[in-house]
Amino acid sequence: MAIQGILVVLSGPSGAGKGTICQELLRSYPELNYSISATTRAPRTGEQNGVNYWFISDAEFQTMINNDQLLEWAEVYGNFYGTPCHHVATLLNSGKDIVLEIDAQGATQIKKKFPQGVCIYIAPPSLDELAKRIHKRGTDSLESIKTRLSSASGELTYVYNYDYIVVNDEVQSATKKIAAIITAEKCQVVRNVTTIEGILSNFYK
Amino acid sequence: MAIQGILVVLSGPSGAGKGTICQELLRSYPELNYSISATTRAPRTGEQNGVNYWFISDAEFQTMINNDQLLEWAEVYGNFYGTPCHHVATLLNSGKDIVLEIDAQGATQIKKKFPQGVCIYIAPPSLDELAKRIHKRGTDSLESIKTRLSSASGELTYVYNYDYIVVNDEVQSATKKIAAIITAEKCQVVRNVTTIEGILSNFYK
Repeated sequence: MAIQGILVVLSGPSGAGKGTICQELLRSYPELNYSISATTRAPRTGEQNGVNYWFISDAEFQTMINNDQLLEWAEVYGNFYGTPCHHVATLLNSGKDIVLEIDAQGATQIKKKFPQGVCIYIAPPSLDELAKRIHKRGTDSLESIKTRLSSASGELTYVYNYDYIVVNDEVQSATKKIAAIITAEKCQVVRNVTTIEGILSNFYK
Repeated sequence: MAIQGILVVLSGPSGAGKGTICQELLRSYPELNYSISATTRAPRTGEQNGVNYWFISDAEFQTMINNDQLLEWAEVYGNFYGTPCHHVATLLNSGKDIVLEIDAQGATQIKKKFPQGVCIYIAPPSLDELAKRIHKRGTDSLESIKTRLSSASGELTYVYNYDYIVVNDEVQSATKKIAAIITAEKCQVVRNVTTIEGILSNFYK
């Protein structure tokens, strides 16, 4: 049996830069696998079904909730987002590592359902910087920007539910820290019981 | 007040290569500080007092034990080894990270006295490889080699007291893993409460 892969959860408030970091992580470490979330929100320009998200209807999403087919799900600004269990379980059991980019609500659910998941909180360096980034993205209305900034304050208090915090003052540096966290987690004694028992049996045979 | 530094404990059986890895780590990451142990054993060729060890007498060592001036100490093959508290505390409080290379007995003491210490077990890939390395070193008598191999089996069972295991099949690769562990530990939420409170107060002011 392959050693179980690691589920890495990247989360944090909107505008902290978790999307950019996730892309950079997948580019730099192609052995990582991206978990595609399901969502009921409309695709943004350039987003593709089965690549960025599984774009599904409200009814389909509700069926997945009812059948307990989601590792986590959340309603964010009136839309539903969730992680289908099946895809995640298949990859982890075959020893593959997965990166999951979700909003702050979902990470707490993951930590409860799957405590061996590695939850990393991506924090913006400051409120000013967060406001600048959301403006710069230009995909949100003024009302939406205000809602995001206000909820960001609330979401930051979730940080104590996470294992790690990485302040995203620079994408390359933040990405390297996350890669280091994955390497370190793979060295944890509790994740290497099979390897350790192998070494011990070699010594005592 | 500076954020507390991290105490990294490299340990494992004799011949696993912890000395070589420690040297490589200090060469590659000069911001790390080496904690010099005190010992009652005679210096090996080329070893210097205050560089490799503090070479002290049995009486001096006993005084340090009695005055609780050692973070850990152990008797190994008839000699005493220990870590003076004072040097470690001064460096950690000024935000500096320390690497400590000790035998398996000491790591368990450290973990009890100083649970925030990061204990890394350096494991040899196999018993055969361990035997080869001890022979190659050529500083031990045949009797001493036999004692070391026999005790290595016993010491390996200590691995479950450690936080991390790094199998030393290649020095460069093992050193990089240890560097990643240090980076990851510095990102742990529990080690960043001061930073987090700073970000939160910035959001709520």
